[in-house]
Amino acid sequence: MTAPMRTSHSWPAEPGPGRRALLGSGVGATLAGGAAVANAAAPRAASSDDGESPAGAGRGDDGAEVMPFFGPRQAGVATPPPAHTRWVALDLAKGASLDDLRRILRIWTEDMGRLTQGRPMLADHAPELSQDPRFLTVSVALGRSAFERVGRDDLAPAWLGDLPPFATDALQDRWSGGDIVLQIGSQSPTTCAHAHRSLVTGAGAAVRPRWVQAGYRRPSERPRWTAERNAMGQVDGTVQPVLDGPDDHLIWRGAEDGIWSGASTLVLRRIAMNLDTWESLDPAAKENAIGRRLSDGAPLTGGGEHTPPDLTATTGSGLPVIDPGSHMRRAMPRAAHERFLRRPYSYEETHDLSGGPLEAKDTHRSPHGLLFAAYCADAERQFVPVQRRLAEQDLLNIWTRAVGSCVAAVLPGVEPGEHLGESVLA
Amino acid sequence: MTAPMRTSHSWPAEPGPGRRALLGSGVGATLAGGAAVANAAAPRAASSDDGESPAGAGRGDDGAEVMPFFGPRQAGVATPPPAHTRWVALDLAKGASLDDLRRILRIWTEDMGRLTQGRPMLADHAPELSQDPRFLTVSVALGRSAFERVGRDDLAPAWLGDLPPFATDALQDRWSGGDIVLQIGSQSPTTCAHAHRSLVTGAGAAVRPRWVQAGYRRPSERPRWTAERNAMGQVDGTVQPVLDGPDDHLIWRGAEDGIWSGASTLVLRRIAMNLDTWESLDPAAKENAIGRRLSDGAPLTGGGEHTPPDLTATTGSGLPVIDPGSHMRRAMPRAAHERFLRRPYSYEETHDLSGGPLEAKDTHRSPHGLLFAAYCADAERQFVPVQRRLAEQDLLNIWTRAVGSCVAAVLPGVEPGEHLGESVLA
Ligand code: HEM
Ligand code: HEM
Repeated sequence: MTAPMRTSHSWPAEPGPGRRALLGSGVGATLAGGAAVANAAAPRAASSDDGESPAGAGRGDDGAEVMPFFGPRQAGVATPPPAHTRWVALDLAKGASLDDLRRILRIWTEDMGRLTQGRPMLADHAPELSQDPRFLTVSVALGRSAFERVGRDDLAPAWLGDLPPFATDALQDRWSGGDIVLQIGSQSPTTCAHAHRSLVTGAGAAVRPRWVQAGYRRPSERPRWTAERNAMGQVDGTVQPVLDGPDDHLIWRGAEDGIWSGASTLVLRRIAMNLDTWESLDPAAKENAIGRRLSDGAPLTGGGEHTPPDLTATTGSGLPVIDPGSHMRRAMPRAAHERFLRRPYSYEETHDLSGGPLEAKDTHRSPHGLLFAAYCADAERQFVPVQRRLAEQDLLNIWTRAVGSCVAAVLPGVEPGEHLGESVLA
Repeated sequence: MTAPMRTSHSWPAEPGPGRRALLGSGVGATLAGGAAVANAAAPRAASSDDGESPAGAGRGDDGAEVMPFFGPRQAGVATPPPAHTRWVALDLAKGASLDDLRRILRIWTEDMGRLTQGRPMLADHAPELSQDPRFLTVSVALGRSAFERVGRDDLAPAWLGDLPPFATDALQDRWSGGDIVLQIGSQSPTTCAHAHRSLVTGAGAAVRPRWVQAGYRRPSERPRWTAERNAMGQVDGTVQPVLDGPDDHLIWRGAEDGIWSGASTLVLRRIAMNLDTWESLDPAAKENAIGRRLSDGAPLTGGGEHTPPDLTATTGSGLPVIDPGSHMRRAMPRAAHERFLRRPYSYEETHDLSGGPLEAKDTHRSPHGLLFAAYCADAERQFVPVQRRLAEQDLLNIWTRAVGSCVAAVLPGVEPGEHLGESVLA
């Protein structure tokens, strides 16, 4: 392997957008100084060229920006989100054993170590497509069902559970569950597609694909931690934990976890949007539903995107400026641990003219929604209280509905010579 | 309208990759000095910033690169292809009249003039999504059926016909035909999605969506005329007519056409690929099927991507180096007029785990293929002879199959104050 040996995914620091301290609030036990904003982090670039080199000249290598593969934590969680990400859920075939699972993870580790660095795999069926990683990351996560399938529930970590049902759920099997979830992200959809095909091929008959969910963000020259507009037009992804610092315990399993140290939990919710009814709202009603401005994502109490909201402010008529039912206010942490990292991606099924599960019946337009990906150390403790609160009350629920859900343990990272899952499946 | 008044889409010239002169060949009446390579053309940029401005600061405007809207020819044909393009086919509702069609085109002209310049439409339901055009172009084309639907066959130009059937076709209705075809391209899928929804909404009940086909190219900082790798790994899009010059008559209807001057013909073929069998080939067999190298797209007779192939070269055993059945050799022009512009985009239906029409039956992987978009002045004269030759013999046919097809007249461009179709539907 030619990839540099690194002991952690640490990135050249960029000035972050500043920390956000939550103000006290009359609504509930809101957390003072709790939620803070992620510092922007820049990936290592093999080349600062965005692929503008002359056609035909070293086509495989121009703009071949890479993300480090080795480290105690897998890339793709706290590394900046690229323009395209897909989640690929696979089920282990009937009768698959722990050894089969180990073998797949060994093959993938080898393949991922190469593909992410822009190098063809050992038996690459299309090596010319492996040389343009565009910040490719692949992250491997296991659902609790993987452990059950191989008859080794005992190996599943206690913190990996299913989510309880929520009143607002309208979950479909076809977008839910999965023994194994691969998260594949890159600036280039061609690269995602090739990594996807290659890894599924590499796993052979021991896995059966269950679903694939592909999403996009507004493209930028390189992956970056900024909030981007979702399909509802909102600036989405503003409030985040601080990365690679004091909030690490929110995202990662710690040293006290032993073999699971460096793991995380992926919660992926597929959330359908009814853009027809949403778009018929006036801007004030849209802003009220979130508690933030459409123009720049600033709280309705003023300032800029990263200004803390003033939950105590009232209008002339004595009503709170930020609606108690607004999504932001309901989603805000009520305790220090009710926080997690979000990597939201938009989805659209362009082929489907049914309008999707939530659109008005006669639109004949493509379903749109959000692939809401959250990462936390403990979903039950951190994610569930927030989701429960949103299911109870959240103005956004009028236009949104979760149609898919999955929870999986992001395996600890690997150092050269190790393979994914090696310690935890021993 | 604040967009600059321009009389044509002329772009700051960049050094082109050089012209290609075809060599004489023993195979048939190959054209000497015929096919030439497009000169690279760069769009006008409102800002050279790729959206790296701080989060929340003028989010609507950062990186708001725009393509000119006005001119005698619509943008989106000879302008450099962006990372994402979708084609949206609409049918006129039963009983729709010529006036309905005119009204739709009037509304769209107004909306397109704004959206492409990063400005909200007059009744924009999500103005915050209209401020990030990312080189957005929308091009409007009419199928022959549009004229029939409104009872005015007489207005259809003689050169707008359907394609004849080809032996290799496996066309499906769900990807074929359409009264109106909107081509929407941008660096950002979010922008494409918003323009798509807005324009379909603007057309109201007079249209019914028929199909949507979305494709992608490898992303670059800005749209550019380079060949990019398709899902088969080939460098695709090398040989092109010269743009904005001597080959204009190949792409555009000329002055002698009167009201149709500045029009073009879009031929969109949806071509499914069997990547499973393709990927099991060895590299030499893959290269033989095209007649070009996988590594850099150079002809098998040597040189670089833009070196002319030597069709007379033979191997030690006397066989032609470039297989007579290879795709390139079969597709090469046999007469000066058998050329056209190509804007190939890859497609993948990630949601679909059936493997698609051509993949091996048990792959459970997403269907992949090519959205082969060709533009020419006269499809019957320029495109059909080439497609006929490929249907007769083309090694690529083993792994590819056309599953959708549509032909539509790209309307002439507009100057400020005019609306699309104004002259030709008078
Ligand atoms: C389609 C569904 C959703 C949309 C469109 C959406 C949109 C937004 C927007 C625009 C913001 C404000 C800006 C920001 O901080 O990112 C926000 C904040 C937030 N959302 Fe969502 N969201 C959705 C679903 C969810 C779900 C399912 C959860 C968790 C269960 C969630 C948790 C949060 C949290 C924790 C915040 C930050 C609150 C704060 O501390 O200020 N969201 N969301
Ligand atoms: C999945 C289907 C297809 C694939 C993968 C494909 C791929 C390619 C590749 C790799 C080249 C060589 C590089 C270049 O000049 O772009 C090429 C050339 C070409 N193709 Fe295709 N192609 C496909 C379908 C078609 C179709 C349907 C047509 C027209 C009916 C066509 C017409 C041409 C032409 C005119 C050339 C340039 C030939 C020359 O003058 O050298 N292709 N194609």
